[in-house]
Amino acid sequence: MKLSKPRGTRDFLPGETARRRYVENTIRDVVIKWGYSEVMTPTFETLELFTLKSGDDIIGELYNFTDKGGREIALRPELTAPVMRMYVNKLQSEPHPLKLFYFENCFRYERPQKGRFREFWQFGTEVIGSDKPEADAEVIALAVNILDSVGVNGALHVGDLRIIRHILSGLDNEQQTKVMRYVDKNDDKGLDDYLEEIEVPAETRRNLFELISLQGNDALEKAREITGDIPELDNFEELLKLLDVYGLDYTIDFGIARGLDYYTGMVFEIYAEGLGAQNQVCGGGSYQLIKLFGGGEVPSTGFGIGFDRIMEVASIEPEETKKLVVVSTDSTRFEAIDIANRLREVYPTHVDIMERNFKSQLSFANMVEADYAVIVGEREIESGKLTLKNMHTGEQCSMTVDEILNMD
Amino acid sequence: MKLSKPRGTRDFLPGETARRRYVENTIRDVVIKWGYSEVMTPTFETLELFTLKSGDDIIGELYNFTDKGGREIALRPELTAPVMRMYVNKLQSEPHPLKLFYFENCFRYERPQKGRFREFWQFGTEVIGSDKPEADAEVIALAVNILDSVGVNGALHVGDLRIIRHILSGLDNEQQTKVMRYVDKNDDKGLDDYLEEIEVPAETRRNLFELISLQGNDALEKAREITGDIPELDNFEELLKLLDVYGLDYTIDFGIARGLDYYTGMVFEIYAEGLGAQNQVCGGGSYQLIKLFGGGEVPSTGFGIGFDRIMEVASIEPEETKKLVVVSTDSTRFEAIDIANRLREVYPTHVDIMERNFKSQLSFANMVEADYAVIVGEREIESGKLTLKNMHTGEQCSMTVDEILNMD
Repeated sequence: MKLSKPRGTRDFLPGETARRRYVENTIRDVVIKWGYSEVMTPTFETLELFTLKSGDDIIGELYNFTDKGGREIALRPELTAPVMRMYVNKLQSEPHPLKLFYFENCFRYERPQKGRFREFWQFGTEVIGSDKPEADAEVIALAVNILDSVGVNGALHVGDLRIIRHILSGLDNEQQTKVMRYVDKNDDKGLDDYLEEIEVPAETRRNLFELISLQGNDALEKAREITGDIPELDNFEELLKLLDVYGLDYTIDFGIARGLDYYTGMVFEIYAEGLGAQNQVCGGGSYQLIKLFGGGEVPSTGFGIGFDRIMEVASIEPEETKKLVVVSTDSTRFEAIDIANRLREVYPTHVDIMERNFKSQLSFANMVEADYAVIVGEREIESGKLTLKNMHTGEQCSMTVDEILNMD
Repeated sequence: MKLSKPRGTRDFLPGETARRRYVENTIRDVVIKWGYSEVMTPTFETLELFTLKSGDDIIGELYNFTDKGGREIALRPELTAPVMRMYVNKLQSEPHPLKLFYFENCFRYERPQKGRFREFWQFGTEVIGSDKPEADAEVIALAVNILDSVGVNGALHVGDLRIIRHILSGLDNEQQTKVMRYVDKNDDKGLDDYLEEIEVPAETRRNLFELISLQGNDALEKAREITGDIPELDNFEELLKLLDVYGLDYTIDFGIARGLDYYTGMVFEIYAEGLGAQNQVCGGGSYQLIKLFGGGEVPSTGFGIGFDRIMEVASIEPEETKKLVVVSTDSTRFEAIDIANRLREVYPTHVDIMERNFKSQLSFANMVEADYAVIVGEREIESGKLTLKNMHTGEQCSMTVDEILNMD
């Protein structure tokens, strides 16, 4: 009986897996250089962790279940809540700011569609302990740097929820949240209807629509015209100055809402070229979750990068290593094993494990696209010089094992 | 409210995660040099995949659940079945032998105890397409090589189920399976009772007990005394000869049964020093699963390594990289960011994101155990030479950014 993988999941075959690991490790190297440390959390958590963060509505999108001990469990849909939970459990007494990163798989029960999978990979960072623009700027610069390192061109949009919240200060918390969700979805009609329903004054409505449509160079100035001089805008201006220090191109965008209650200030998104409509590859901002999870009132800021989308547009490739196949005769099988073991110090090396004859071994070398066949016949054993056959050109030459090991 | 991680799972904090990644990548490098390619499969599969392989009894040990679409799903308890499923779906037309490896997490619902977790990591390989002793020997040698590469000393025990099956040839399949499970558990009393119950002749019983107690140098000879000259023993002898070619120390052990029906011939286990009673770090053998999963009658051989146990005894450590903290004054904050960005080409480098004063920044450098503080004051900016303070010795010297980048 032929079995299939579950719907919306993927198998990664050899070439693709090697490419994913290469991109993953490239990103890891960058983030470590910025002073960030990797952490890992369990693949599943208590369901409560995610409902506490995102509300009960999220349950419909989760892989959740009751385990054999009666616990309500969910496969993680994202990593910020688990990392904050871990922070509260174990890291509160570490020196701050804490700079953490993760690279893990997440799960989402939703209709599979192009570029969206039920199991997907997230790369992300969380900086814990600073609410300063310097922290926000570093996090944004790091995200851009990561994308640069894997050859992804992205358009950076930066906003700040404090400005929109300033305009909405007459609304209660729940109303603000609803407004943010309409803004996040770009649902102007829904937003307008809702504002009318809760009887928001005409001026506030006008200001809100004007603010969320502000984008680009003069957006800051125009926001000042709407809100007047408020410290939230000074803070945002300071952030922009720091982004200039980092040499970043950005678009001010007060329409970014990110749709979740726990974001507190700076928000940003990065859209990559070459991905069509689903082109957001990174999103983040400053947020407050630690108190909700039983810790202190500790600010944090971070981002998540959709690794699967990155893989679609990343333009870096693993370095080519030369692949060798050691080819032997009936009488030199043992010597061939020995020689293969030595060549493995440097090269990915195959040796026959099928008891194939000489010709079939050469043909295997061809089929697996080896760069060289290393021929170990009786003559080669006697002379101590092996025949190295270039599988691309067909050229042959005689070399000792040491010479082959040093041929680059 | 303080939330905990689910029972039997683990958080990995910064130092431990870095160590795990280092050991993981060390192993990955070794296996790639042997010509193996990494694959990845989904974290969950259809429940049927695992019951088909291991019988319905396994359900009690699984994290299984019904997803929102009514599918019976299980978190993978191991990787051999998923990899074979993937092979049948996608890799049957590739050149053989196929040499695959994986490094993934697995899940087991069982009482957590020392060294056994509900989420755990497995490293493993599967060679598909050869039933020759050369394939078995390569797989064993690779397992030993992996353990060597991470500094784990292991005792290798090798057996062959074909010998025990030869003795049991009078029993039906189900009876053989039951016997193998008793042997696997070292349950002599249970085995004896069962053999009596199914009325196995006294001579067979004597032969069986003698065979499974055979261990060490003369085991092969003594097995021949029990079974006579059979091709199964010639094949096993050929395997041992190949293990000698690989220069391996091994103990012949006909008591290895591995307790599962799909093993067909060679079986081996490796026990590590320093782990107490639960000291098996690797187990494998040749097996047949592909036909069961809807593919052809293709032989395979492989092993799994318990990564968590390896981490307990691995004696390699990540190379130390120098950690830097750039320290600035109020007037040099922007320059400090610039300099930190340049130093990140080589070193993990922190720069202040808390708007701390000079003294607090130095104290942060101390707390995070930086190797150097790179002091960026006004004098340093003017002269183009930064003050490099060795945080271990307190010594200071003046260096340009380029000199710092090249100081190793």
